[in-house]
Amino acid sequence: MKVEVEIICVGNELLIGKTLNTNSHWIAGRTTALGANVRRITVASDDVDEIASSIREALRRKPRFIITTGGLGPTFDDKTLEGIAKGLAKEFEVNEKALELVRSKYEALVREGRIDKVELTPSRVKMATFPKGGKPLNNPVGTAPGMLAEAGKTTVIALPGVPPEMEAIFDGSVAPLLKGATDGSAFYEASLYVEGIMESSLAPLIDRTMHDNPLVYVKSHVYVKSRAQVEGKKSHIELHFSTTSEDPNTGKTCLEKAILQLSELVRSNDGEVSSAEAGTKK
Amino acid sequence: MKVEVEIICVGNELLIGKTLNTNSHWIAGRTTALGANVRRITVASDDVDEIASSIREALRRKPRFIITTGGLGPTFDDKTLEGIAKGLAKEFEVNEKALELVRSKYEALVREGRIDKVELTPSRVKMATFPKGGKPLNNPVGTAPGMLAEAGKTTVIALPGVPPEMEAIFDGSVAPLLKGATDGSAFYEASLYVEGIMESSLAPLIDRTMHDNPLVYVKSHVYVKSRAQVEGKKSHIELHFSTTSEDPNTGKTCLEKAILQLSELVRSNDGEVSSAEAGTKK
Repeated sequence: MKVEVEIICVGNELLIGKTLNTNSHWIAGRTTALGANVRRITVASDDVDEIASSIREALRRKPRFIITTGGLGPTFDDKTLEGIAKGLAKEFEVNEKALELVRSKYEALVREGRIDKVELTPSRVKMATFPKGGKPLNNPVGTAPGMLAEAGKTTVIALPGVPPEMEAIFDGSVAPLLKGATDGSAFYEASLYVEGIMESSLAPLIDRTMHDNPLVYVKSHVYVKSRAQVEGKKSHIELHFSTTSEDPNTGKTCLEKAILQLSELVRSNDGEVSSAEAGTKK
Repeated sequence: MKVEVEIICVGNELLIGKTLNTNSHWIAGRTTALGANVRRITVASDDVDEIASSIREALRRKPRFIITTGGLGPTFDDKTLEGIAKGLAKEFEVNEKALELVRSKYEALVREGRIDKVELTPSRVKMATFPKGGKPLNNPVGTAPGMLAEAGKTTVIALPGVPPEMEAIFDGSVAPLLKGATDGSAFYEASLYVEGIMESSLAPLIDRTMHDNPLVYVKSHVYVKSRAQVEGKKSHIELHFSTTSEDPNTGKTCLEKAILQLSELVRSNDGEVSSAEAGTKK
């Protein structure tokens, strides 16, 4: 079954070019590997209305999941949960189960002698203030819990922006949900590296291969090794083959057939095939 | 004057987690440094309707510029220009000036002895097929020209996805337009690194500093050095200060005043300030 996912990353640091968006790269790779299809990625600022409008726009496309990352911490500009509440037109209120999770984190710090006593200051209660009906997701490596809320046929999941926290909640709470929804589908990919042929000469060969192998998607990527290089006989091109299939054998066989055909077409057009790589995503 | 910019990145490779989106990071940093404000970044697939709907959604927010990257090449899945034409409700047709630029690239390859003759195959003419009224932007390091189209008060600019080509067209054709629009504004930033204080304890101190320094935006970023770490006395936190100002002295003075105040607040709450960095973006 085709499972569509949208990713929304919240953070001014992404919009000013301070931080490279490795979180969306990680989530997109993991989600694809689990057999789901990432339809769109949006980066929004730390502003309640911007977050709310990003959520509403994504909901209109009716994905099965919306996964947000960033903006769950204790500071005033951590506004993702308030933005989701506004986007879903739900009240924004303290969630008792989430507050219990937050309190237990500070109790652990007291036991470890790292702080003197548990004080649930407004900044700390903020991390447990959720859209009404939201469920907390345990954060095994940080303080702010994740959040899951249902909105019609879409499940909205909010993850922190600190990478190890985001990854731990994804692996612990989100991956099982995606796996259940995609029901055994997996993504298969392979790459073929060619040279000595221009991308514009490859284009009709790729077209023919995709026409003959309708389950396989082929995309060319030009690697420029020097800033002074223009498209020409020295282009290095990666041809990336991919397919999603419920059966590993079908996936691999489809890819192998398409790779063989395109390799032969490249060679018969005076191109060189330098190497091939195949595998599934981890 | 506040100049809003949206960035739209086109490419399935970004949505399957194959390619890290360094292009949006580069464009966002450069655009911010030129004094403009990146409001949103969208990643869409190589699909005409997805590209068109991303363009329409961005246009509804009335940014001064929309900059797209990716999808200008010769292969069938390079669909950005067709998507922009659809999003702007313009015809999609061969642009004679763009075709002249493409032809000149292949003529240069003939002169260099890298190809025998100039053949304007359908794949090559494709790179010069534009939304009606679009203007080509010279690509000094590749074959596919960039494109500029006006849509009401928004200028839509399409750049290639190959990084050196994207960067060369940005620096040559886009930066002067942004500079003209922002009229001397520039972005100033500085970072303060603190430890020994929890982010949830810093939150009210950041609030007070921003209240007293209304032109300055402060955001905390937690650095986790070990996957087993929870928020605690060993947190390493970067406090990032930023402001946009037409006058360099005003920008720097504002930042320095805010940094001084927050440093003192951190120290009076038993935190340590380990170092500070200041500068403008390059």
